[in-house]
Amino acid sequence: AAMASRQLSETKLRRRSMSTSYRLPPLPWFGMDIGGTLTKLVYFEPSLDNAEEEREKVAHIRKYLTSNVAYGTTGLRDVYLEMPNVSFLGRSGTLHFIRFPTCSMSIFIDMAKDKNLKDLADMICATGGGAYKFESDFQSRLGMSLLKLDELECLLNGLIFLAERHPLECYYLPEPDPSRSDCVRQPYSLTRQSDCYPFLAVNIGSGVSIIAVRGPRDWNRVSGTSLGGGTFLGLCCLLTGCETFEDAIALAERGDSNKVDKLVMDIYGGDYELFGLRGDLVASSFGHMMSVDKRAEAKPEDLARATLVMLTNNIGSIARMCASTQGIDRVIFTGNFLRCNELSVRLLAHAMDYWSRGSIKALFVQHEGYLGALGSLMELVDPDSINNAYCTSESAQTASDDSQKMSSQNE
Amino acid sequence: AAMASRQLSETKLRRRSMSTSYRLPPLPWFGMDIGGTLTKLVYFEPSLDNAEEEREKVAHIRKYLTSNVAYGTTGLRDVYLEMPNVSFLGRSGTLHFIRFPTCSMSIFIDMAKDKNLKDLADMICATGGGAYKFESDFQSRLGMSLLKLDELECLLNGLIFLAERHPLECYYLPEPDPSRSDCVRQPYSLTRQSDCYPFLAVNIGSGVSIIAVRGPRDWNRVSGTSLGGGTFLGLCCLLTGCETFEDAIALAERGDSNKVDKLVMDIYGGDYELFGLRGDLVASSFGHMMSVDKRAEAKPEDLARATLVMLTNNIGSIARMCASTQGIDRVIFTGNFLRCNELSVRLLAHAMDYWSRGSIKALFVQHEGYLGALGSLMELVDPDSINNAYCTSESAQTASDDSQKMSSQNE
Repeated sequence: AAMASRQLSETKLRRRSMSTSYRLPPLPWFGMDIGGTLTKLVYFEPSLDNAEEEREKVAHIRKYLTSNVAYGTTGLRDVYLEMPNVSFLGRSGTLHFIRFPTCSMSIFIDMAKDKNLKDLADMICATGGGAYKFESDFQSRLGMSLLKLDELECLLNGLIFLAERHPLECYYLPEPDPSRSDCVRQPYSLTRQSDCYPFLAVNIGSGVSIIAVRGPRDWNRVSGTSLGGGTFLGLCCLLTGCETFEDAIALAERGDSNKVDKLVMDIYGGDYELFGLRGDLVASSFGHMMSVDKRAEAKPEDLARATLVMLTNNIGSIARMCASTQGIDRVIFTGNFLRCNELSVRLLAHAMDYWSRGSIKALFVQHEGYLGALGSLMELVDPDSINNAYCTSESAQTASDDSQKMSSQNE
Repeated sequence: AAMASRQLSETKLRRRSMSTSYRLPPLPWFGMDIGGTLTKLVYFEPSLDNAEEEREKVAHIRKYLTSNVAYGTTGLRDVYLEMPNVSFLGRSGTLHFIRFPTCSMSIFIDMAKDKNLKDLADMICATGGGAYKFESDFQSRLGMSLLKLDELECLLNGLIFLAERHPLECYYLPEPDPSRSDCVRQPYSLTRQSDCYPFLAVNIGSGVSIIAVRGPRDWNRVSGTSLGGGTFLGLCCLLTGCETFEDAIALAERGDSNKVDKLVMDIYGGDYELFGLRGDLVASSFGHMMSVDKRAEAKPEDLARATLVMLTNNIGSIARMCASTQGIDRVIFTGNFLRCNELSVRLLAHAMDYWSRGSIKALFVQHEGYLGALGSLMELVDPDSINNAYCTSESAQTASDDSQKMSSQNE
């Protein structure tokens, strides 16, 4: 086993051995991550090969979740991410990955009430900002409490869990080329490296958090930016009239950002040799759009592309600075901004490679948006987590101090 | 005299003593900075107290420039920035500051031809990307060559020149408060400090360049971003239908970005205590705009404000990271994005103070957009500059190497 997994297992074992009343929590097993835009739900479906007894109400929920791919008008199951034959504390089963917009939380609570979830468990493991925001709603309307878990710890635990069990989970692009949609994805074995740590985790949700990870439970949030996935979707809705993330990505894929951005060559007439800046680099994002003629020429897809390129490159640039400052040469990009967003994956991979002259590697994961929800599921099966929920450990304290220095911007 | 000015003077003297054929260049004296959006022109009007001889054609140009405040349909003189009684190589006179959109360059060339500028001088000192882009136009249509000068060296020389002669040139906000428009501006004496260096210069034009300055002629470009003033104006034109920078700023001043941005409290329900993030901080710029209802509520002024806040805070965040990495505690913000833009000045001052816990000071200059043009004028009066025009010095080489690592993003 890799150093990473050994260290993590040892930590878990130590925590469990300290617990005097260890037992499996009752089914169903859920982990939830309530983000600013999307709520992610990971559901562990136990296999019933051993003819185990299953209570009727539990079977009811299992059948509802696994026999549908859509729930209500906004909930969706990402079937392509499903993980069968996963072992969890001696039980084997399948992990399912479900999401719905956080603005539909009220509908979710109604549905949970309708399915009598309350009769099966008193508590749901939840992470993300919504675990705080919706806590009283879960209590008053559903009679359930939320076990609020730290979102970055959940994210990292989810990441390590997947990397250990799924050899193709983590990947990189050996020859990243933003203009080619057929870039090869090469598996990257995060856990088979004896030097798994340190790495930088860059989670791109509605906003962006950047975490330096030096070992299991040894991490701190070093930076962040409010220019994230929510900015991409918000600007695209305003600029192009699109309504969904999927539409915005589809527009961006067929657009030309050079119709929107001012390039170095537009200002210099060619390369800016003194600074080694190529003529085809962006000098001013949206810089052409102050011209009424250029605005008339720019199509919605060009605007969507320019929005995507601007935000992706800004995140890449900040991530590279952080990696450089922290002395870290691997950056793992996660979060739902990268879901079905090959273009940003290619742009990030290329930017990290080009601007670091190959010294910093960009890594990506298949379950990019579900790491936090999976990490919160892992805490459910660890009864110690109730005591650790608010994560007052030394590393969390450090994170708090550092984030005061650099993080999302105030206004 | 301050250390800074002494060092600079010694450098200039050394360079001049090496010149065997030192003489004053013929009038009129211009310095030009041709940027991606605006062209800036600094004109030295010699005082004629000593009843000096003035050639008729020179007088013609002087009268045209000083008796008007607008030139053609797009040229403007910033009268409030005028500097009388400036001494320049034994001549006293007045510095005038003129600007026009770079897209009107063709009209400027026609005007220069009309005024027979060619008969007075063979060469114009010019910096900025346009010095490269328009070189052949000046040659073919006007018969004049451009002495192309490095833009960051011009910017820094202009800055030091002003700081030495104008005690109120450089200022800071002792109590920056983004919500108060009556923040006191306190003069900051850049040249009276024996520890004038190092400082970080952040020039916000169409795009942004970040330069670490450790001494006269000892600087390197450490970073940059394509999210600059051109992005602000371009996005505002698209989002609000405004046409000019002044209109965009006026809109932003009366808007409310909280109608557009998702705040930490919108996601967490309050503060995010673990990371020390206050509830009123922006978590996702434009994050509300994915909601059709919120879009219907957002007014053009709210969108302009959110655009300004997003870009200003992003620049502040990157500048703070660079200052921290470079071990520098003073950051001078320059460039025309800050012209008549009190709001961004307050936001930058507050952000630097708040996120660095008072350890990094934000400085600003009165002639924020004209430093490069002024610096190029200073090269005109230094005949050595012809040999130094392409700035192949050691420090320039270093800048080139560093900018490969971090700068404007590729696409």
